[in-house]
Amino acid sequence: MVSVQSHRKDEHISLAKKFHSKDSKAGFDQIRFVPNALPESDIKNVNISTKLGKLNLTVPFYIEAMTGGSKRAKELNYQLANIAKNLNLAMAVGSESVALREPELASSFSVVKEVNPHGIKIANLSANASISQVKQAIQLIDADAIEIHINAVQEIVMPEGDRKFNWINNIKEIVAAIDIPVIVKEVGFGIDQKAMKQLSSIGVQYVNVGGTGGTNFAKIENFRRPNKELEYFSDWGLSTVESLCEAKMVPNLEIVATGGIKNPLQIVKALYLGANAVGIASEILNSLIENGPLATQEMLNEWILGVKSIYTVLGVNNLDELRKCPTIY
Amino acid sequence: MVSVQSHRKDEHISLAKKFHSKDSKAGFDQIRFVPNALPESDIKNVNISTKLGKLNLTVPFYIEAMTGGSKRAKELNYQLANIAKNLNLAMAVGSESVALREPELASSFSVVKEVNPHGIKIANLSANASISQVKQAIQLIDADAIEIHINAVQEIVMPEGDRKFNWINNIKEIVAAIDIPVIVKEVGFGIDQKAMKQLSSIGVQYVNVGGTGGTNFAKIENFRRPNKELEYFSDWGLSTVESLCEAKMVPNLEIVATGGIKNPLQIVKALYLGANAVGIASEILNSLIENGPLATQEMLNEWILGVKSIYTVLGVNNLDELRKCPTIY
Amino acid sequence: MVSVQSHRKDEHISLAKKFHSKDSKAGFDQIRFVPNALPESDIKNVNISTKLGKLNLTVPFYIEAMTGGSKRAKELNYQLANIAKNLNLAMAVGSESVALREPELASSFSVVKEVNPHGIKIANLSANASISQVKQAIQLIDADAIEIHINAVQEIVMPEGDRKFNWINNIKEIVAAIDIPVIVKEVGFGIDQKAMKQLSSIGVQYVNVGGTGGTNFAKIENFRRPNKELEYFSDWGLSTVESLCEAKMVPNLEIVATGGIKNPLQIVKALYLGANAVGIASEILNSLIENGPLATQEMLNEWILGVKSIYTVLGVNNLDELRKCPTIY
Amino acid sequence: MVSVQSHRKDEHISLAKKFHSKDSKAGFDQIRFVPNALPESDIKNVNISTKLGKLNLTVPFYIEAMTGGSKRAKELNYQLANIAKNLNLAMAVGSESVALREPELASSFSVVKEVNPHGIKIANLSANASISQVKQAIQLIDADAIEIHINAVQEIVMPEGDRKFNWINNIKEIVAAIDIPVIVKEVGFGIDQKAMKQLSSIGVQYVNVGGTGGTNFAKIENFRRPNKELEYFSDWGLSTVESLCEAKMVPNLEIVATGGIKNPLQIVKALYLGANAVGIASEILNSLIENGPLATQEMLNEWILGVKSIYTVLGVNNLDELRKCPTIY
Ligand SMILES: Cc1cc2nc3c(=O)[nH]c(=O)nc-3n(C[C@H](O)[C@H](O)[C@H](O)COP(=O)(O)O)c2cc1C
Ligand SMILES: Cc1cc2nc3c(=O)[nH]c(=O)nc-3n(C[C@H](O)[C@H](O)[C@H](O)COP(=O)(O)O)c2cc1C
Ligand SMILES: Cc1cc2nc3c(=O)[nH]c(=O)nc-3n(C[C@H](O)[C@H](O)[C@H](O)COP(=O)(O)O)c2cc1C
Ligand SMILES: Cc1cc2nc3c(=O)[nH]c(=O)nc-3n(C[C@H](O)[C@H](O)[C@H](O)COP(=O)(O)O)c2cc1C
Repeated sequence: MVSVQSHRKDEHISLAKKFHSKDSKAGFDQIRFVPNALPESDIKNVNISTKLGKLNLTVPFYIEAMTGGSKRAKELNYQLANIAKNLNLAMAVGSESVALREPELASSFSVVKEVNPHGIKIANLSANASISQVKQAIQLIDADAIEIHINAVQEIVMPEGDRKFNWINNIKEIVAAIDIPVIVKEVGFGIDQKAMKQLSSIGVQYVNVGGTGGTNFAKIENFRRPNKELEYFSDWGLSTVESLCEAKMVPNLEIVATGGIKNPLQIVKALYLGANAVGIASEILNSLIENGPLATQEMLNEWILGVKSIYTVLGVNNLDELRKCPTIY
Repeated sequence: MVSVQSHRKDEHISLAKKFHSKDSKAGFDQIRFVPNALPESDIKNVNISTKLGKLNLTVPFYIEAMTGGSKRAKELNYQLANIAKNLNLAMAVGSESVALREPELASSFSVVKEVNPHGIKIANLSANASISQVKQAIQLIDADAIEIHINAVQEIVMPEGDRKFNWINNIKEIVAAIDIPVIVKEVGFGIDQKAMKQLSSIGVQYVNVGGTGGTNFAKIENFRRPNKELEYFSDWGLSTVESLCEAKMVPNLEIVATGGIKNPLQIVKALYLGANAVGIASEILNSLIENGPLATQEMLNEWILGVKSIYTVLGVNNLDELRKCPTIY
Repeated sequence: MVSVQSHRKDEHISLAKKFHSKDSKAGFDQIRFVPNALPESDIKNVNISTKLGKLNLTVPFYIEAMTGGSKRAKELNYQLANIAKNLNLAMAVGSESVALREPELASSFSVVKEVNPHGIKIANLSANASISQVKQAIQLIDADAIEIHINAVQEIVMPEGDRKFNWINNIKEIVAAIDIPVIVKEVGFGIDQKAMKQLSSIGVQYVNVGGTGGTNFAKIENFRRPNKELEYFSDWGLSTVESLCEAKMVPNLEIVATGGIKNPLQIVKALYLGANAVGIASEILNSLIENGPLATQEMLNEWILGVKSIYTVLGVNNLDELRKCPTIY
Repeated sequence: MVSVQSHRKDEHISLAKKFHSKDSKAGFDQIRFVPNALPESDIKNVNISTKLGKLNLTVPFYIEAMTGGSKRAKELNYQLANIAKNLNLAMAVGSESVALREPELASSFSVVKEVNPHGIKIANLSANASISQVKQAIQLIDADAIEIHINAVQEIVMPEGDRKFNWINNIKEIVAAIDIPVIVKEVGFGIDQKAMKQLSSIGVQYVNVGGTGGTNFAKIENFRRPNKELEYFSDWGLSTVESLCEAKMVPNLEIVATGGIKNPLQIVKALYLGANAVGIASEILNSLIENGPLATQEMLNEWILGVKSIYTVLGVNNLDELRKCPTIY
């Protein structure tokens, strides 16, 4: 029999698919690159790689945390892992807590390491997880980094969700105990500078700003409620671009941008705004379900080329040069 | 036979229902809370109660003045009083002048005290009322406070309405004579700081800013006119948010916010902007007529939970803390 | 047989009717009165009259220059004159040049003085008119004032229009020779302060800013052209509100506001912004053709009441007090 | 057999036609002339001619580079050359590289000089062209000036396009070697001041800012791709108006404005903003294909009259006076 949590995972996938929109509201339209009519460049000299701590990302974007914990999730993780391997993308898995509770579901996550043993893999757990759970989650996929998600609004809008959010001490302990990068990650409502400074003060070095503009869990939850009484939460939060601007005010953090990133230009804008890596969830999931794994791989390959093309027409050869481009806000 | 005034009451209810809109134009969209990604909070510690003078409101919003004076109004007041009792909400009745003139209509108001003898009840009369009328109106529902409505625009747009508005001295006398809170209340066109300072100078301590963005009596009147010649009044006034901002400039007033408040987030924003209590009319009336009393009570119960949830994700435990949250205008 | 000019008059009336729009783009929405919640006023004490030079306008708005010069025009002028008489409105006639050239058309103008011998009547000619023509035009309707229209854009968009605009000296001579108010009037593209200062420097005391936002002769002309090649002129000009703001920079002028004024609130806003009188053309013409003279008179009577009502809710008794009201731009 | 390049030319024409839009997004709506109610002008005294280097343009706009290289292109160039001759317009041809590679296609360009030997003709090649190619291209149409197009974004969006853009030295050499005006021209993504200063520093005297707002090659390319993966480039660039503003910061350049210019008012605005000449492509092509050569000539004749009419109502007699008009941004 399928557990409630496992069933819920599948339902989330379907709803995320249903609520997927081609338009990003993450704020990237508000910033434009000044075109460079005389780029003096050659795509062959362009290097789009980035670093996250000591991890080298040859491609600056990766497959963000989405799934695991059901038969269908296993199938999707298998397909995503293949794409990650073929294109040399990093990849995060969905929250692994279900697998720690129900060991028979573990293979829906570990399939990722079987398919792609040498790729960069990112584990995922909630900020309530114990150190021993974090270690198991890392081991389960042989992870190179772990995302610890903080998701108060997502919990509050779920009828069965948490109503108590005391995470700071626990995060501090996890960071102290774990020696791979620990990325503290919002799941779609953004983070302001105050919270980032707090995180920095307890030793966190990596933050995924997870802003509004893409997948919106308040909208997804609201859909499941007959009276739509959570509609008012759909405008809650800071957009990914706003969150990136907030992050600029906080020294000593490495930033990941997630939320509403849907094309190579938005990826490049996120990098310009300070992100070291860019996570993409719904745009990939949607393509996978709608067009299949080959088309998705081709799309992501086009994106890699797209990022390189944008560097080329801007006349920049790497991330440092990109960050110096003139822009219009 | 039904008197003109009594008939008019029923017509107002139907038209308010007809003109009800899910969208608020009260200006709340212009203000956003900065999300708190690390709330360190527990819904169990959250206290959403407020005070209006010495009155303790366990719930910061209440059922605003709407009805009384007809058979149908009695039925509605009965249902509203039940909801108020079950959820521990304060409740105002509609203008009681009709009952003072036609005593056989008194029970359409007094039903409220019969159903809910221990709840907080708010009487309602116009600014023309004599002290003796005010006392009768209070007695009729055993009121804990009384709203004195000022409604020049509403009168001017009614063919049979007043064309003479000399209220200041009368309000001064009422305030001096009555020892429960006297709330001077606009009915939907807002109040600027000059008028609030004037009110304060004559001893008024409680003002309901009653701003634009919700029920609009100019639109309702216009509908009854074949030539729509009052359309130009539909943009008249200050929004509820603008009026709340004006109120900040006036010391020593306790503020109620009414007008276009349609969900828990708007309630919390009104409280943040300085309101001690929030009145809701059309959203409740509409639910009552469309979905019935049980569904309305459930909706309002969800709202109470919603207000608590918002406090929780903001990481604040009470009104004082709420008012210190960072926001974006 | 009907002359081309006479035929053209009728065509203009039909097209103006066709292009009539309920929405004003004259800019009045950009200015709002701060509502006065405590007006302390009585409609009986409100005096809405204004002065234009020595002329007393009991009603601050009037029927603006529109027609004359054909059988149908005579009928319309007859009906307008009746309304003007019944409501005590001033009234302007359309350009009288056609009557000076074709005397058999004179009665289409003079009907106005026959119907309404004691009312305020305003003659109308172009800025090319000779002094003797101006005198004839005045005499023809026994005018109390004369409008001299300046209409370069209107001419340029008419295939048969003028292409030469040397008006200044001629206007100077007319003003010197005529002892009733000479109002220099744009017909719908507005006037900037530079031109108004120039007019003032040659002795002009009365300017009708005739701004954009209402009847637009570029749009009307464009309609008659198969290739719509004049579309680009439809955004040309300064709005009535912009022109009124320009007029504030010019001392010693009395201002009339025309262009896109379509309800009592816009009239009051124009008065607030410095106009001494307000001209209304298309809104009246449209009502006359669509609803007939009685309905038009009733509408304008409602407008008089509307202007008074707005004074009342603002708590002002006359134009001087109105101009001191707080507003929001 | 038809070569790929030749076929591609025809396809570009059809797609440009398909994507043609009456609305310009080049930014001209953001600037308005203050109307001149007293122009004191006569269309007979108006002179709209401009100079580009030593070239006298009696009409300030010209037919911009579009076509050549196929049978259909020859037909279009023939028709455009006739119009240019009849109205005394300058005219540019499309990129001549195809004719240099495939001599049998040369007549699709040279037809222009046969039809219009005495008119001003402008050659066109890419910034990769050698000096000898430039000379051939000039000779082929007996050109009075040559446009060197720089089009990095256009290339990057074409699957078969260049991916290497080292143009500066080559442009420097061309400018040094050629003694007719060499106009460096973007094809629709605009130029910023930095690039214009660079061009100026290598001896370039003429720049065509070729901004966004009209024909958009990213949109055209995207249409040919099944997955629309280039949509994100459709907002890339600086508008024609933005580019003209940038050009103001660069001394010693003569400027041509192209991109989204679709009527006489936009032409006059471009001249006001600093352009010495204005190029028009898609609006002419569209008319030619849709309405034929006679209607196109009539339209352009109306435009000449339109430019003169605008000068007249502004009360200016030539370009110098135009540039002093007051405007509103
Ligand atoms: C179906 C689905 C499941 C998700 N599950 C998780 C999760 O388990 N853990 C997590 O940190 N984020 C999860 N996310 C959030 C994503 O990682 C990402 O932060 C968010 O979707 C915003 O990115 P997007 O706009 O590209 O979708 C999930 C998103 C989707 C669409
Ligand atoms: C049907 C109806 C009747 C009302 N009657 C009164 C009244 O008698 N006295 C009063 O002060 N306000 C009255 N109001 C105004 C409300 O109390 C409230 O100020 C206004 O409706 C704005 O709030 P809302 O947008 O939530 O409806 C009435 C409103 C409605 C919809
Ligand atoms: C049918 C019609 C005829 C007009 N004829 C004249 C005229 O002869 N002389 C004149 O000064 N203005 C004339 N006008 C302009 C009006 O007086 C007025 O300035 C203009 O219509 C703008 O006001 P509105 O928006 O209220 O129509 C005419 C307007 C209309 C609609
Ligand atoms: C069908 C077509 C072909 C074009 N070919 C060329 C070309 O070969 N060389 C060039 O410099 N520009 C070329 N252009 C660009 C135009 O010269 C012009 O810069 C651009 O279309 C923007 O102007 P518009 O908005 O008026 O079309 C072409 C444009 C079109 C529509």
